Amino acid sequence: MSYNSFGRVFRFTTWGESHGPALGAVVDGCPPGIALSEADIQPFLDKRRPGTSRFTTQRQEPDAVKILSGVFEGRTTGTPISLMIENVDQRSKDYTEVAKAYRPGHADYSYDAKYGFRDYRGGGRSSARETAARVAAGAVARAVIPDVEILAYVVEIGGDAIDRDNFEAAQIAKNPFFCPDEAAAGRWEKLVDEARKAGSSLGAVVECVATGVPAGWGAPLYAKLDSELASAMMSINAVKGVEIGAGFGAARLRGEENADRMRPSVEGSNHPAFLANNAGGVSGGISTGQPVVVRVAFKPTSSILTPVETITRDGEATDIVTKGRHDPCVGIRGAPVVEAMMALVLADQKLLHRAQCG
Amino acid sequence: MSYNSFGRVFRFTTWGESHGPALGAVVDGCPPGIALSEADIQPFLDKRRPGTSRFTTQRQEPDAVKILSGVFEGRTTGTPISLMIENVDQRSKDYTEVAKAYRPGHADYSYDAKYGFRDYRGGGRSSARETAARVAAGAVARAVIPDVEILAYVVEIGGDAIDRDNFEAAQIAKNPFFCPDEAAAGRWEKLVDEARKAGSSLGAVVECVATGVPAGWGAPLYAKLDSELASAMMSINAVKGVEIGAGFGAARLRGEENADRMRPSVEGSNHPAFLANNAGGVSGGISTGQPVVVRVAFKPTSSILTPVETITRDGEATDIVTKGRHDPCVGIRGAPVVEAMMALVLADQKLLHRAQCG
Amino acid sequence: MSYNSFGRVFRFTTWGESHGPALGAVVDGCPPGIALSEADIQPFLDKRRPGTSRFTTQRQEPDAVKILSGVFEGRTTGTPISLMIENVDQRSKDYTEVAKAYRPGHADYSYDAKYGFRDYRGGGRSSARETAARVAAGAVARAVIPDVEILAYVVEIGGDAIDRDNFEAAQIAKNPFFCPDEAAAGRWEKLVDEARKAGSSLGAVVECVATGVPAGWGAPLYAKLDSELASAMMSINAVKGVEIGAGFGAARLRGEENADRMRPSVEGSNHPAFLANNAGGVSGGISTGQPVVVRVAFKPTSSILTPVETITRDGEATDIVTKGRHDPCVGIRGAPVVEAMMALVLADQKLLHRAQCG
Amino acid sequence: MSYNSFGRVFRFTTWGESHGPALGAVVDGCPPGIALSEADIQPFLDKRRPGTSRFTTQRQEPDAVKILSGVFEGRTTGTPISLMIENVDQRSKDYTEVAKAYRPGHADYSYDAKYGFRDYRGGGRSSARETAARVAAGAVARAVIPDVEILAYVVEIGGDAIDRDNFEAAQIAKNPFFCPDEAAAGRWEKLVDEARKAGSSLGAVVECVATGVPAGWGAPLYAKLDSELASAMMSINAVKGVEIGAGFGAARLRGEENADRMRPSVEGSNHPAFLANNAGGVSGGISTGQPVVVRVAFKPTSSILTPVETITRDGEATDIVTKGRHDPCVGIRGAPVVEAMMALVLADQKLLHRAQCG
Repeated sequence: MSYNSFGRVFRFTTWGESHGPALGAVVDGCPPGIALSEADIQPFLDKRRPGTSRFTTQRQEPDAVKILSGVFEGRTTGTPISLMIENVDQRSKDYTEVAKAYRPGHADYSYDAKYGFRDYRGGGRSSARETAARVAAGAVARAVIPDVEILAYVVEIGGDAIDRDNFEAAQIAKNPFFCPDEAAAGRWEKLVDEARKAGSSLGAVVECVATGVPAGWGAPLYAKLDSELASAMMSINAVKGVEIGAGFGAARLRGEENADRMRPSVEGSNHPAFLANNAGGVSGGISTGQPVVVRVAFKPTSSILTPVETITRDGEATDIVTKGRHDPCVGIRGAPVVEAMMALVLADQKLLHRAQCG
Repeated sequence: MSYNSFGRVFRFTTWGESHGPALGAVVDGCPPGIALSEADIQPFLDKRRPGTSRFTTQRQEPDAVKILSGVFEGRTTGTPISLMIENVDQRSKDYTEVAKAYRPGHADYSYDAKYGFRDYRGGGRSSARETAARVAAGAVARAVIPDVEILAYVVEIGGDAIDRDNFEAAQIAKNPFFCPDEAAAGRWEKLVDEARKAGSSLGAVVECVATGVPAGWGAPLYAKLDSELASAMMSINAVKGVEIGAGFGAARLRGEENADRMRPSVEGSNHPAFLANNAGGVSGGISTGQPVVVRVAFKPTSSILTPVETITRDGEATDIVTKGRHDPCVGIRGAPVVEAMMALVLADQKLLHRAQCG
Repeated sequence: MSYNSFGRVFRFTTWGESHGPALGAVVDGCPPGIALSEADIQPFLDKRRPGTSRFTTQRQEPDAVKILSGVFEGRTTGTPISLMIENVDQRSKDYTEVAKAYRPGHADYSYDAKYGFRDYRGGGRSSARETAARVAAGAVARAVIPDVEILAYVVEIGGDAIDRDNFEAAQIAKNPFFCPDEAAAGRWEKLVDEARKAGSSLGAVVECVATGVPAGWGAPLYAKLDSELASAMMSINAVKGVEIGAGFGAARLRGEENADRMRPSVEGSNHPAFLANNAGGVSGGISTGQPVVVRVAFKPTSSILTPVETITRDGEATDIVTKGRHDPCVGIRGAPVVEAMMALVLADQKLLHRAQCG
Repeated sequence: MSYNSFGRVFRFTTWGESHGPALGAVVDGCPPGIALSEADIQPFLDKRRPGTSRFTTQRQEPDAVKILSGVFEGRTTGTPISLMIENVDQRSKDYTEVAKAYRPGHADYSYDAKYGFRDYRGGGRSSARETAARVAAGAVARAVIPDVEILAYVVEIGGDAIDRDNFEAAQIAKNPFFCPDEAAAGRWEKLVDEARKAGSSLGAVVECVATGVPAGWGAPLYAKLDSELASAMMSINAVKGVEIGAGFGAARLRGEENADRMRPSVEGSNHPAFLANNAGGVSGGISTGQPVVVRVAFKPTSSILTPVETITRDGEATDIVTKGRHDPCVGIRGAPVVEAMMALVLADQKLLHRAQCG
């Protein structure tokens, strides 16, 4: 069943396809009186925007957002905020081949199996272009949690990980990979170039950290903060794994290593001092006051120039090559999307906490 | 905000604490006319039941389930099915220490930060005892999807993984670890014994496979089949990571390796032949007809006899030792819980697919 | 689809049938730290309890409520509150006739058409006995909104309305009809006796007023305060109409009569002085600070001793007489149920308002 | 809390204000493969469109709908259908007075009390202009339930009711009042003209009948078909009452009068023959196969030229006159909106029934 809405009290609904006239999001439940204009949203869209380097798709989309409702005299009114982004560069091309055969790794076959037919132009609704709407909605969410800072960056491409000792937050905005390790960014340039030229593609791991989340957000049991984050991240196109804090690594720790030891609160802090953050800022589904840390695995882009065995809609064997303009590593542009989903979850959790606990 | 319900049309709500009189689940939205009795549910509870080997907690709970509503003359009526399990072995002990200080790794501090106080007896609502209610609800879910087979097993304990070449499904029921590799089960015996005796604990990775899921279940975007699974698994106590199919490993594959090649359907099959299953049976949020594969990381049990630095409710430094009866590796008993959550998600998705697509 | 849950953040789920072992409610999302014991809930159940006068069913049910979870040391913990009421007086009788034929006015035929079979013992899930669970949940809701006073009373039975000039709140608890007009109560005694003896039944109109609701609860558009109240009231067994404030009468007023004129706030008040309350305390879906006023129409009890034409499950014509113990006017005991639903809606709205507006 | 979405599996979300650039609806959960174009939606909008007679507001809005997503090659894809209607005739006027003082009967005060400020241009989000979005969404819903016929008409204006003996369905489209009684339509012409000229306004009662609903849609308890209808109708601007079947009149019937007697099914029918329809097609929350009948009370338009006592935002006493272009009887244009809400509820219920009962 199609559920294109996310959130419990701070909610958003997205709509639109890769090659339709526009796409958008309706944000509902936003608190009133928050300063908001298109200029607050656009920078986040610009970070995700395609066509800005040779390491992303060459589709040229200005991704200019329009606020169609919910804001009056520069402030949110508490009513639905409708955000629209027009599609500009839907290149008219021949989709005959894509229409006839399934691209492995794509949702072509599964959509067809479910719905009986599909909008095959650029992937239709399954296109990562939908994530522009999330990023726009995420910018509204950020305005709801002004004390929280959210930063996502790429920690691994094609199996080549950053060196944590080289971590420098200032680097992230300086290279086309959202990479905090200058040396890794240099290596990735060659790696991604090579994959692109070979008609191949690479996977990536994105890490996202939210600081300033007070202790107490989230709840048992089926809307745990980490459960909501897992759902949010896994809903992003091409994501195959999500972990919180030490994540899969925690399964290799012993109890005494994993438990984040606590010391009395340091002056000026509103929470205990923790000697580690294996929990990733979430215990029992509730934030601890430590940074919330999530890692997200993106598979390699499925649209590649390398021929792959597949079948036609009629069940005949064939090979397929996906021409067109594609990201050689879709995980790179995933970073701003992961940030947006983090913001959307946290804004919802802030309001939910306020609802129950005042 | 407390959300103790899960699901969209096939839904369940759990209630109860570790040391209350009982716990339970209310299952709503179940199709009518399905044969159901306590005998259909009990075997799943027995698999998860504590006290069955020295590798699990020694708390003795019969975990006998009662159906209080929703079944008439042996069949579901379509109205809410209330399931109740009485707590029998709530050992009366002195909780003074736990009441006064926070156990690191536990939800003690975060609950207190959220709610202002907490039921400290055995972890209250944050106790893994709640998962008995999930397992009971999961047994009902299985009856809704009789053509789907679900099997979970432990693939790694304390960093020691099974050898996939030794995989033998028949082994799973033969050892106390739900381990499909006889040799690994032997090693784990020593490993877990050592940790238990040392007053420590171990993490684990559980894998779950659902076969017989037809192509077409799930949907874009925020109720993707994998997104729902991620949410379901991450809501289980002690879980810190979830991955689908190749998962984090997919981030290290190249596009042409990752894309599951398709060949014409073999006779008798209702879906194409896939040459691999990196997707874990889910593409674009929709099932492909291949087995649905999920892996779940459990952190080591936080209740350990090794003293750990912590603080009291008043913010004073102290050390804490968690006495009582605890699982040396909570991931082991996680296997039946993971199975239950898989069943609960799939039953919901089956009904949702039927709703939209007839 | 079976949805046995109500509410958005303060939610409850009910379960149980007329002749099962028990029935209950799980209340989720309750704020923590609220004093709550069975003694806080029982008085409301006692008001609704059957068998207290000859004007209600003679079924003897103590309706003793047990709190099974969610309360620790006398206070709510913020986790699910499980409430259970055991059925005691399920008279063992012969249901052959009811099983074979449909009782007109009852849900017999429609349940069968939907589910393919039904629990015919005392109406199963469609029995008004379910409302005991609502009343228990409603008592919890009241504890969430201590500043709101809720009072429901019967204003009409069998077409005989009270005289508003005789309205005396103190009368309501003094007669078996929840009637605020002593003279009307006297007349109703005869009216209901006559109907009961004739093997017939009567309808009623219940009015409910909530005072102390601050301005600002509720919201546009599909969770308007009045829309939620309409849904809540119409979900009660036997209800066929709901109106707010002037209600259907408002359709006969002119604009200048209907608009509740406003004057400056009187000292000590937190809202303007209104010169009338045709709006029933709700404007644009949001409370105005005036009393919230709802009227609810109950149809006459469908279980009557007068023979009625009907058909069997096999489609054959027959007549049916509903023996057993029934309320001659189900609307009377509807008053405490209407109060409960009002409390449940308002508690939810209070928390929702706090979520969005802080 | 702002909830601008309605429905459980077939859902819609509306956005937009009276004087913003546009308004719209996102319809989610629609089955795939349904033929749909703007031409299928426009006729319903045209029925509701303002400015078509002197008995409605003179605002000139073409209300031309655009489908922005969810339809491919003329058929629904199963993904969100975004519908947009541009506002054309937002007359630029001086809102100083409305901005300063509250219009009694309007949501001005309650919005301000909730949100701290409001979009005062034409009522902002509380404007009945939002109902255009419902009507557009309702047209999609109709396509989901092609076997159901839905017809709404006005049965009373200003207290002057139609004569049921004069009922002629063909009349409804022939007069500007959606009136099925030619004689009443003649009287209403004078009545509404008089009110309009006097700077006053009138209320109305709209009745809506859905035929072709099979037995079995709906469910106990909190998503009863009638409960959903009550919620849907009460969410429409200016509505103050909802009743099903005999409604408030049922409270005046005796049990044997109210129970709709059943006779064996007549040939060709898929449900029993009922000798009456006091139930309005719904029993125990589930459809019976009889026509579903709802009546809805609209209060008189609150925007009137007659001066009314009120207060300013600063709490000072003043009088207010609402100039501008308003419907002298907002209930008239309510008829197509009531039809839309009926369609939206029934489409959702059809899919929900299919989910649970196959």
